[in-house]
Amino acid sequence: MRFLSDNAASVHPKVWKAMRAADGPDSPYDGDVLSQQLDDRFSELFGREVAVLWVATGTAANCLALSAMVPPHGGVVCHREAHIEMDEGGAPGFYLHGAKLMLADGEGAKLTPEAIRAVIDPIRDDVHQVQPHAISITQASEYGRVYQAEEVAAISALARERGLGLHMDGARFANAAAFLGVSAAQAAGDVDALSFGCVKNGGMSAEAMVFFDPALADVVRYRRKRAGHLQSKGRYLAAQLLAMIEDDLWLDNARAANAAARAIAQSGAGRLMHPVEANEVFIRLTPQERETLREQGFQFYDWGADAARFVAAWDSDLAEARMLGERIADL
Amino acid sequence: MRFLSDNAASVHPKVWKAMRAADGPDSPYDGDVLSQQLDDRFSELFGREVAVLWVATGTAANCLALSAMVPPHGGVVCHREAHIEMDEGGAPGFYLHGAKLMLADGEGAKLTPEAIRAVIDPIRDDVHQVQPHAISITQASEYGRVYQAEEVAAISALARERGLGLHMDGARFANAAAFLGVSAAQAAGDVDALSFGCVKNGGMSAEAMVFFDPALADVVRYRRKRAGHLQSKGRYLAAQLLAMIEDDLWLDNARAANAAARAIAQSGAGRLMHPVEANEVFIRLTPQERETLREQGFQFYDWGADAARFVAAWDSDLAEARMLGERIADL
Amino acid sequence: MRFLSDNAASVHPKVWKAMRAADGPDSPYDGDVLSQQLDDRFSELFGREVAVLWVATGTAANCLALSAMVPPHGGVVCHREAHIEMDEGGAPGFYLHGAKLMLADGEGAKLTPEAIRAVIDPIRDDVHQVQPHAISITQASEYGRVYQAEEVAAISALARERGLGLHMDGARFANAAAFLGVSAAQAAGDVDALSFGCVKNGGMSAEAMVFFDPALADVVRYRRKRAGHLQSKGRYLAAQLLAMIEDDLWLDNARAANAAARAIAQSGAGRLMHPVEANEVFIRLTPQERETLREQGFQFYDWGADAARFVAAWDSDLAEARMLGERIADL
Amino acid sequence: MRFLSDNAASVHPKVWKAMRAADGPDSPYDGDVLSQQLDDRFSELFGREVAVLWVATGTAANCLALSAMVPPHGGVVCHREAHIEMDEGGAPGFYLHGAKLMLADGEGAKLTPEAIRAVIDPIRDDVHQVQPHAISITQASEYGRVYQAEEVAAISALARERGLGLHMDGARFANAAAFLGVSAAQAAGDVDALSFGCVKNGGMSAEAMVFFDPALADVVRYRRKRAGHLQSKGRYLAAQLLAMIEDDLWLDNARAANAAARAIAQSGAGRLMHPVEANEVFIRLTPQERETLREQGFQFYDWGADAARFVAAWDSDLAEARMLGERIADL
Repeated sequence: MRFLSDNAASVHPKVWKAMRAADGPDSPYDGDVLSQQLDDRFSELFGREVAVLWVATGTAANCLALSAMVPPHGGVVCHREAHIEMDEGGAPGFYLHGAKLMLADGEGAKLTPEAIRAVIDPIRDDVHQVQPHAISITQASEYGRVYQAEEVAAISALARERGLGLHMDGARFANAAAFLGVSAAQAAGDVDALSFGCVKNGGMSAEAMVFFDPALADVVRYRRKRAGHLQSKGRYLAAQLLAMIEDDLWLDNARAANAAARAIAQSGAGRLMHPVEANEVFIRLTPQERETLREQGFQFYDWGADAARFVAAWDSDLAEARMLGERIADL
Repeated sequence: MRFLSDNAASVHPKVWKAMRAADGPDSPYDGDVLSQQLDDRFSELFGREVAVLWVATGTAANCLALSAMVPPHGGVVCHREAHIEMDEGGAPGFYLHGAKLMLADGEGAKLTPEAIRAVIDPIRDDVHQVQPHAISITQASEYGRVYQAEEVAAISALARERGLGLHMDGARFANAAAFLGVSAAQAAGDVDALSFGCVKNGGMSAEAMVFFDPALADVVRYRRKRAGHLQSKGRYLAAQLLAMIEDDLWLDNARAANAAARAIAQSGAGRLMHPVEANEVFIRLTPQERETLREQGFQFYDWGADAARFVAAWDSDLAEARMLGERIADL
Repeated sequence: MRFLSDNAASVHPKVWKAMRAADGPDSPYDGDVLSQQLDDRFSELFGREVAVLWVATGTAANCLALSAMVPPHGGVVCHREAHIEMDEGGAPGFYLHGAKLMLADGEGAKLTPEAIRAVIDPIRDDVHQVQPHAISITQASEYGRVYQAEEVAAISALARERGLGLHMDGARFANAAAFLGVSAAQAAGDVDALSFGCVKNGGMSAEAMVFFDPALADVVRYRRKRAGHLQSKGRYLAAQLLAMIEDDLWLDNARAANAAARAIAQSGAGRLMHPVEANEVFIRLTPQERETLREQGFQFYDWGADAARFVAAWDSDLAEARMLGERIADL
Repeated sequence: MRFLSDNAASVHPKVWKAMRAADGPDSPYDGDVLSQQLDDRFSELFGREVAVLWVATGTAANCLALSAMVPPHGGVVCHREAHIEMDEGGAPGFYLHGAKLMLADGEGAKLTPEAIRAVIDPIRDDVHQVQPHAISITQASEYGRVYQAEEVAAISALARERGLGLHMDGARFANAAAFLGVSAAQAAGDVDALSFGCVKNGGMSAEAMVFFDPALADVVRYRRKRAGHLQSKGRYLAAQLLAMIEDDLWLDNARAANAAARAIAQSGAGRLMHPVEANEVFIRLTPQERETLREQGFQFYDWGADAARFVAAWDSDLAEARMLGERIADL
């Protein structure tokens, strides 16, 4: 009964099927017929023209997108617990050539205009201090919190006002959209680039970089190759992405994961560290309680000394999730 | 009848099978059971202890390996037509943080000790000139030429003498080993790191970085993550690599490709720009001759104004290759 | 009556004299007779063998030294208000190729072993998180606080234990040594590299990078040139450094500055934000009080909304400093 | 009798005088009254509006200027023997974050539109190859050759046509202008940025980055600080630059150096490797001939096995230069 992470879940059968259907030779890199469909298909999904490039990981997607917005001498405002700050092994420093992450606070790893201003307003406009060039937010956040459309809009307005780019890390974008019950466009809002997650949601090895500003894509095309991320058999990555948005598989998978997370969260609001909106559940549990759950067959990660993190995936067994919720309630 | 490139050929059925067998959840990144087998299995293949990391592309494999050998202020000697110089979109500049490629000459894109010395001996040992820290050779070369064991040994001896690291770009290492009819260890010789190609040889999206010096692997582990190349479902990459070396599939595939290339080369030594040793055939052909061949259904790339490049892959049809050879002879 | 900063004070007559004496042609770069004396003269000063390189600015000195200790994928622990974090325009990101500054807390911008451990102990030893490779401390600190020998020793012991390099930003090292009344060696303690400040202490354009580990100097020699910091007429920089340590000019100048700072600080411990140990005085003053002082002819910078920073230099007029102290007391 | 290099010649008395006159406190960095005059004074010199920043070395001037024109994934066309390629210790790789130098041929280290096209025309407009973003030429060239106004114009026209930036390394710009007998504006032509040399021409430690496009200066301001090149007592650098252009000292000094070079070159056109246009003389001399000259007290560098390089400076003794010319003629 695994609730360790969604990042190692199985590959969805429809994704497998699409990959197999892509077999046979085609043009290399992104010259194949599937990669060539990405712009159109995602433009339909988002209801506006977008340019889409595949890449193998969320880290690469985030950092490549940001590298087109931020010069080496600039900075990116992000949450202090953002994935790009905490879990990407310094990839932003690499891809942005030493640009600086500027850390903001905010409940549930979400940013607000106030939190962003608290970081950027004290920066003197002189050469001794790194100047901000972009903002990065995570939808859903690292604590499974979801930005409402108006929250993104407020951040976006601030970004426009200050001339900053706006990037959205959407490793769990599907879970956010499923929670909100809105369109992809509404869940993304007015950002410049979105890392549209697929791997955590039933994919194997493909994430979509969605550029609402095509000029960014023109830069990232070169940066992707330069980073060794232009795979020669790109059709197998495109196939995953197309399968994922075909017939809303991305939403179906996310709904399933969210539902399992809610089932776990039944255990009682009292123990929850954060409201459960997407597919992650952070629960206060003593070491002994965690030991008890593990003895019952549940796998999960500790979260600090007195809590645990449970992550549901598209293939989580809802019955197991319910059982876990009950067992926690029983503690 | 495609002889465009081996880089977009189909995925071998055994690779597909291994990938499917890897389905089901496992630990993320390279903590899964398959990734954990790589060191042992490749150590058996090479008859000595090696550390092996998967990565999605040859560009990343080459540059990550070199990044562990060369400081940002150093240089890498390579052939003027090496893939790292010509076709990686500046990836060495990115991964090596501005280190310099030092270009040497050599027939068939192969280096010799003399050619290397001609580059490094004139470099004054002072801070005004970039100092060499490594050598990179390609086995088989960008023109399909293969280094004999003693040729690698001579370069290796020079590298040791000068305190330089030695890297081998083995995007077509299998084709070289198949041509030589020697073991993997003999085809690699005494290099520090080998990019062991798989994608061009029937794989989908996995190359093996083989480190004969484990200290290099310890650095590259961090660099791989930092480059966004640590995929969360790494088991599907490990599966490809294990399938490829299982029962010598890598050699079988390479032998098939080499045989098809030889069949094309039948067309007559007179037209060949380079001896055909691996799976690439460079043939002098006028624009009109190329037009004729294309009308006959053959697909291939022009190579400059008066030649063409034909590349055979593991799945090339030997009969088609023979027919191509005959058609060329008929011109 | 300027108490704005020591970084724009006049050049000391002895420094001018030494520069003029260096006129006439000599070997370029650091091949001249003066640059060649640096190692010996500073080795005498520190009572142990050191390698010394000149450079024009403290930012370059700090970042070049750190660049030899920290790989691009590594990190440097420093205080949250350290100069390298706050005031160097992102230079560490540039020189360290994207390595990360890891921010620690500590009173008066000083680090302690506890504060350092609070930063590094939670870092998981895996590739997802940047690993620390060095510590940087500032002597005297950005708030004019001085590390006692045993405080540096405790940090040094931690650095050794954890295998971390230790760098000391000594932009105001002379002020610290003068306050402590100890030798240069004792004020530096067991660090690997020291940025020995000269510009703020009566120099014009030279700082000394002092390497207690000569292997670091061997790397930095290349990095300095690569950063465009190897001036062709280096003898004028060497002359400044030699003049500064000749007959303890560095200590005389620092003592004068410290004395002026103490005179300002007479104004009453109640207003002081930090104990005055070096040549900086941070005093709580309302906007109106600051206005009053400025009307009396004193120049200084605001420090946030309710305080001011006064910096004394080697050429500060002690009488003016006393008068300032009295005026503040009168407020 | 030193003809080793102009890079270590004495500092001109007028420069010393200006530096001394700059003593006394002023605002730090480039906020002082002298630095603030640079834009206006150089705008007068060039007869058009320019933005000017000081920096200590030609390497930094060249690389900072180029860093504002070329993204990390781009390239710079320069001569195969350009200073940025041969003698800057890899600084372009550092400052341009791994961008590539694209080497062109050309007599006397001068580029022509044809030579540039020979480099850039074969570059496929795809992501596998680094794309050019700028051209860098050296006035006077590394072999002391000078671009006529129409030669610069032709290169400039090509740059505009292809959307490339154009940078001029003017370490010996004064020598070129003096040779041409034209205004600064005419010697520079329609470039985007010029490294206006001062150190080799009687300065101590200041070069001027002259930006004809002020947007470049706005970027370089940040980059200069980030590179540790924003000296706190910048007034001493500004003083040098202002002294140099006051009353055409820059031209007077260059004329003196050029005259001395011509005197050396009297030795006979037959031995000259390059026409002598600026202040460098490359002469074919056997080892024995060089030995003879050295015994006569002349100091100079060998240039390969069968030649020598003589460089005259502003303070070269014309009588000594003539004597050298005669001695060479006597050989």
